[in-house]
Amino acid sequence: MMLKLEAERISSSGRLVMWLRAEDKNGKKREIGGLCVRGSVVGGGGVRVINGRKVNGVVVGENKAAASYLEREGAEGKALNAFKLGRFVEERFVYRQTFVIRSYEIGPDKTSTMETLMNLLQETALNHVMSSGLASDGFGATHEMSLRKLIWVVTRVNIQVDKYSSWGDVVEIDTWVAAAGKNGMRRDWIIRDYSTKKTLTRATSNWVIMHRETRRLSKIPEQVREEVMPFYFDRSVIFEAEYDRTIDKLNDETAENIRSGLAPRWNDMDVNQHVNNVKYIGWILESVPMKVLEEYHLTSMTLEYRRECRQSHLLESLTTMKTSIAEDTDSDNSALRSTHLLRLQENKSEIVRARAQWCIKEQA
Amino acid sequence: MMLKLEAERISSSGRLVMWLRAEDKNGKKREIGGLCVRGSVVGGGGVRVINGRKVNGVVVGENKAAASYLEREGAEGKALNAFKLGRFVEERFVYRQTFVIRSYEIGPDKTSTMETLMNLLQETALNHVMSSGLASDGFGATHEMSLRKLIWVVTRVNIQVDKYSSWGDVVEIDTWVAAAGKNGMRRDWIIRDYSTKKTLTRATSNWVIMHRETRRLSKIPEQVREEVMPFYFDRSVIFEAEYDRTIDKLNDETAENIRSGLAPRWNDMDVNQHVNNVKYIGWILESVPMKVLEEYHLTSMTLEYRRECRQSHLLESLTTMKTSIAEDTDSDNSALRSTHLLRLQENKSEIVRARAQWCIKEQA
Repeated sequence: MMLKLEAERISSSGRLVMWLRAEDKNGKKREIGGLCVRGSVVGGGGVRVINGRKVNGVVVGENKAAASYLEREGAEGKALNAFKLGRFVEERFVYRQTFVIRSYEIGPDKTSTMETLMNLLQETALNHVMSSGLASDGFGATHEMSLRKLIWVVTRVNIQVDKYSSWGDVVEIDTWVAAAGKNGMRRDWIIRDYSTKKTLTRATSNWVIMHRETRRLSKIPEQVREEVMPFYFDRSVIFEAEYDRTIDKLNDETAENIRSGLAPRWNDMDVNQHVNNVKYIGWILESVPMKVLEEYHLTSMTLEYRRECRQSHLLESLTTMKTSIAEDTDSDNSALRSTHLLRLQENKSEIVRARAQWCIKEQA
Repeated sequence: MMLKLEAERISSSGRLVMWLRAEDKNGKKREIGGLCVRGSVVGGGGVRVINGRKVNGVVVGENKAAASYLEREGAEGKALNAFKLGRFVEERFVYRQTFVIRSYEIGPDKTSTMETLMNLLQETALNHVMSSGLASDGFGATHEMSLRKLIWVVTRVNIQVDKYSSWGDVVEIDTWVAAAGKNGMRRDWIIRDYSTKKTLTRATSNWVIMHRETRRLSKIPEQVREEVMPFYFDRSVIFEAEYDRTIDKLNDETAENIRSGLAPRWNDMDVNQHVNNVKYIGWILESVPMKVLEEYHLTSMTLEYRRECRQSHLLESLTTMKTSIAEDTDSDNSALRSTHLLRLQENKSEIVRARAQWCIKEQA
């Protein structure tokens, strides 16, 4: 195998993109990773000028429609805020980013937590939008959305975990988007082990558009649709009807465990001053019996986001555990199912419904 | 400037280390980064055999004493679990790792949080130990410590922040250790902006040894001292007497704000089944007035860890804010000082004392 480092200076600001490319004995090339650094680079090359603007040669790919957006917007800083180990694959329909699992991203059992996985999915999604040149405010909204004060909000997520990674493991995450009905967008992800390429996790999600100030849902404006359409890629990683099935609403009678007085912390807020989607998982787990947390892995989780939560709110977490019904021929006591609800303590209005599956941990 | 990629296969398991090295026009070489990947590498070279064991050529450096440890232990997997963007500098006394600030590591004000900085410091410290070949259990304990069931525990940390980074910023963190008295170890860190090399944050910490089961403090055994001594490097980044000064103990009378009922979550536990050092910051901030969190940056924080906390415990957070006394000639209302205490709710025993300084945020 041959390895090549190709460096391209892509703007007058001195940003430098380095690509590691491997070439096998049959001459087949594969990108191993990209690294964008800012610094005082002397020399270098690879600057391309399109329509009078400097555009990174890497960005203009085979997907002509998508490329034209980048061209129009001027990919300069934007596309390359995708700074590190992120790049487009599959004719630019799929964005791929590589991560190393850090020591503080693992739980008491030394493997990455569900929150870590969701954080990495979020990071990949945001970098996808940034790299596509569509991002305006840097948090997923496109230019046409920002003009209209619109933001994306997630309504449903399902994540299925085959294997949790450990500290130091390298994973690669693919993500892409597709239409979901008339006014929604779907985003899928696959997490693979970087070395074996084995699929570790699959996830899908649904998004709608909301007005930043009125907090009311909105149709997708035609101009926004035109922005995102070129990136739509209709491939599904989650095929189960399970995903769409309604999640039972727990109440004081049906819940086995209720944990009250959960208070969002300052750092649970995101830049939109509401609770970050990922943080809900921690509160859901608060009403799960300790024995389950200790002895079982979460293998699947579906979250249905029903209402925003702000910092002044106090939350209650409700959980009911069920031993898995023998739907699968090989099911036994090693699998559990659970249903969850997060609600406001003051008026019991629903924030998040969730459903999960658990599998007994292998003995170390 | 010339850029070179050098790849070395360092074990029969197919691990491959890639080093990016830059050479300027005067022939001066500088390592830009290292990347360790596992995979099915065909060919490659650079395998060195020392004392019958394969050792990565990169590892055996100028610091002979440190190198001999690596040699003895067989650096194979171990030293290279330092997987990514981490490497030794300054004759192997200093370990340097590069990070990109991720979207979920920033707070509501779009800059990295104090917890993020502390997490990155922890990650760099652990990778330092791993890369030095000393690590046994992967969480900072050396071989001789593991044999005796000893672990490192932090007693005091001070972190001084000049500037918080934003999402996508690249920072580089240097860390090294030194003796602290007869039975302690000091660890210092510097965080720099990767492109400007400007210092963003300085931090120092003190560590002692504890028995994993009895939880009693221990002297440093001679064999452990011999392991770590070769890495000792007496350079200080924090010179202020302020660091060592006793932190006032708050009580119900002296505290302006008390927040009770703080419950560690499952994911706040670390692999030692006690609360991770970094998590205390979140609870400390819980009793800080919202106005301060919104309008001020933490510029300095000293934490004094006095007792372990386990998951079953409920905590109380106490805070007193003071407008900064005009010790510095240019001080004004834009600076605040604060004192904090985290204690167990049931018996008021102290967990963490803390002292902090705050500076008003610049208007965006």
